Amino acid sequence: MLKDHIINELRSIVAPDRFLDTPAAMASYGFDAYIVEARPDAVMFPVSTDEVAGIMKIASREKIPVTARGAGTNLSGGSVPVCGGVVLCLTKMNQVIEVETADRYVVVQPGVVNGDLQKILAKKNFFYPPDPSSYSISTIGGNIAENAGGPSCLKYGVTADYVMGLQVVLASGRVIRLGSRNVKDVTGYRPSGIFCGAEGTLGIITEATLRVAPCPEAKRTLMIRYDDLDDTARTVSAVIAGGILPAAMELMDNITINLVEDAKHIGLPRDAEGLLLVEVTGINEAVEKEMQAIAAIARKNHASAVDVAGTQAESDRLWAARRSVYGVLTRLSPTTVVEDATVPVSRVPEMIRGCRQITEKYRLKMSIVGHAGDGNLHPTINTDIRDKEEWQRVEAASREIFQLAHDLGGCLTGEHGVGLAKAKFLSLVMSRDTIEFMSMMKKAFDPHNILNPGKFN
Amino acid sequence: MLKDHIINELRSIVAPDRFLDTPAAMASYGFDAYIVEARPDAVMFPVSTDEVAGIMKIASREKIPVTARGAGTNLSGGSVPVCGGVVLCLTKMNQVIEVETADRYVVVQPGVVNGDLQKILAKKNFFYPPDPSSYSISTIGGNIAENAGGPSCLKYGVTADYVMGLQVVLASGRVIRLGSRNVKDVTGYRPSGIFCGAEGTLGIITEATLRVAPCPEAKRTLMIRYDDLDDTARTVSAVIAGGILPAAMELMDNITINLVEDAKHIGLPRDAEGLLLVEVTGINEAVEKEMQAIAAIARKNHASAVDVAGTQAESDRLWAARRSVYGVLTRLSPTTVVEDATVPVSRVPEMIRGCRQITEKYRLKMSIVGHAGDGNLHPTINTDIRDKEEWQRVEAASREIFQLAHDLGGCLTGEHGVGLAKAKFLSLVMSRDTIEFMSMMKKAFDPHNILNPGKFN
Repeated sequence: MLKDHIINELRSIVAPDRFLDTPAAMASYGFDAYIVEARPDAVMFPVSTDEVAGIMKIASREKIPVTARGAGTNLSGGSVPVCGGVVLCLTKMNQVIEVETADRYVVVQPGVVNGDLQKILAKKNFFYPPDPSSYSISTIGGNIAENAGGPSCLKYGVTADYVMGLQVVLASGRVIRLGSRNVKDVTGYRPSGIFCGAEGTLGIITEATLRVAPCPEAKRTLMIRYDDLDDTARTVSAVIAGGILPAAMELMDNITINLVEDAKHIGLPRDAEGLLLVEVTGINEAVEKEMQAIAAIARKNHASAVDVAGTQAESDRLWAARRSVYGVLTRLSPTTVVEDATVPVSRVPEMIRGCRQITEKYRLKMSIVGHAGDGNLHPTINTDIRDKEEWQRVEAASREIFQLAHDLGGCLTGEHGVGLAKAKFLSLVMSRDTIEFMSMMKKAFDPHNILNPGKFN
Repeated sequence: MLKDHIINELRSIVAPDRFLDTPAAMASYGFDAYIVEARPDAVMFPVSTDEVAGIMKIASREKIPVTARGAGTNLSGGSVPVCGGVVLCLTKMNQVIEVETADRYVVVQPGVVNGDLQKILAKKNFFYPPDPSSYSISTIGGNIAENAGGPSCLKYGVTADYVMGLQVVLASGRVIRLGSRNVKDVTGYRPSGIFCGAEGTLGIITEATLRVAPCPEAKRTLMIRYDDLDDTARTVSAVIAGGILPAAMELMDNITINLVEDAKHIGLPRDAEGLLLVEVTGINEAVEKEMQAIAAIARKNHASAVDVAGTQAESDRLWAARRSVYGVLTRLSPTTVVEDATVPVSRVPEMIRGCRQITEKYRLKMSIVGHAGDGNLHPTINTDIRDKEEWQRVEAASREIFQLAHDLGGCLTGEHGVGLAKAKFLSLVMSRDTIEFMSMMKKAFDPHNILNPGKFN
């Protein structure tokens, strides 16, 4: 609970309608897309870096937890205020400050929605490559804090690869700037690595300079179907090993195909055991050539059909279907557990077989979808957290899935973050010294542990 | 001076021939490619992470400065042991541990020479994109510590974009691992941003997992000549603004052209005021199309001739000539000052004009060469540090060049690092709070200030 004089002091920093402490607000900002809920003591909506700095100065003095959030699409509980305190909702800092296509960068506030930035850039025939499936609602600040991935990250790289400069408010309320508007800049420590992916535990991002790219001349989508999921996975490994780099290569299993088809009716092949959606980008001739090479590898791996989307509209429908998977899955059961374990791409077939064996062993319903081209799979379990016996099996299965990923040279999380979901599994993949090193960093950056406390370190 | 019992203790960690404290060794390992020299107290050549950890434990206990180095090609003095102590030369940790082209990564020790790794990869039709001009002798450890760039970084990105995982020995001697063999991995803080570009001030890199890429199907080189340097620079900006991304786009002025031609006799056009070397990579058809688009933009910007290298051998000769520039320049005068200021690419024409005005004002000899496509220019001044009056003018000109870069939205250093060369200029481009933040980080990682002390923070 915040004391009255602190509430008044915090309130004085922002306009009255941007400080909320009603029960409805506390409930609304106490959860994200993960399974845990909590209650903050207040929700604040700053509109400037100065306001964020002012809030952090008070928080630092009074040792009040501050959890930054954007749209709350986080799948690992990273934006749940488990220690109470202030939720700093940055959605009103949503100005696009600069769009500079000649120098290929934009400057944005953290509350800008990824999809809104894409629309602005599209008018200039540019795009911002990181495209989490939540892109139409998730914010750039959240994307940076989580180092978000997405289908296109296979070819174009993840969020961190696009962060050129950041303005950050530290725990103390001091404001720093690292990086610049230059693609190459080695003046001082690199901002992207320090704050990108730190899940709001090291500082609050209040402005970002991001690299953007010209749209490719051509873009085509292949839909490849299989009678066997193993063949599907083997195609993915073979395409990457073959030196081809599609923009995206997404895998769906039969369960996912049918769920999406039930919801979207776009003509996905219900009888296929595996489906690949592949996007190829580049100049026309290159796209044509890559499509042929991918189709040949697919046929060699026993694809039952290789279809090319005839129009952009058809292609858009297929990708909208892919992006709908999470929404479709969440409607199936009270609780949806989306795992995020990632393995080197040559191990994708083993990983998929292993995940299926684990969920069979624990008698659970699992579907598999994922950014297979970079080994980033999302085995998803539909369950009900209130069914304690089943939930124990889900937890045991999750642990085995993480252990399997680790045994195959993989990692705990490819793009969803550690948050609350994976904190207890860190010791599976990291040494004690490494975990202690992260704690040391956290302590140096945030000595009173007020920035998103209770999370991975 | 190290005490005898410390020398004995250090000596006991490595084989006798890997601990040197002769005057010759002290002189040999007291400098790099920058103008400052110093004397360490000992030079050690560890061959394993355990040995590095053992050395750091003693150094930490005894507060002995430790400066890691590889081949010593650093242009900003980053590997000069200005506080004495131990030089940790990692050139004997030169094992390529794993080459995994199916999953597109390699695992290497820090002393592996970039060019040696390229040769191994080339046999499998793969390459490691970051290619500093020193690549035939510089080591991967040094490349990572400096976040090295190079011509190909225009299209493919800098070293940090290729670091997937690191093993690091901390100041305390503890060993940590961050990242993994996965392209996507958000488990914990990102290693590339923390240790890449930190110039050996935060930890000693003892193993790196690096992303590698399949060789492009085709690679062609264009040589474009101009009667006017401004037109040369304008072409660079126009190509990038036109949405084209060549693998490399290097600019040389008339002075550089003639110096290289004097030394190499490869037929560079001595009368050209500006020259662009452009490498285009991709599938055959894409390369053809991009070459035509670049040639059209060049002609629109008054290029006097656009030549395409007819054979790979001719192309190799042109690039070898480009890479020889630094060597050629160093032979001209006792002291060579290679600046590294970088600006957004649309400002390249202004930056070049400004650099020329500044050196005229200070009556200095300057040549300009650089990775113009990403705005990373190397205005180079040939001088003699012993001529005190001229040296004062060089220092004044350098400061004005940095200020100009900053005024144009640029940065102090694009790829050479801060080191000794630019430490005093940090306050030109960074706020006090940002500089203090970097000091705080340094202190947290290295409380006794033993890792490469006396450098940028």
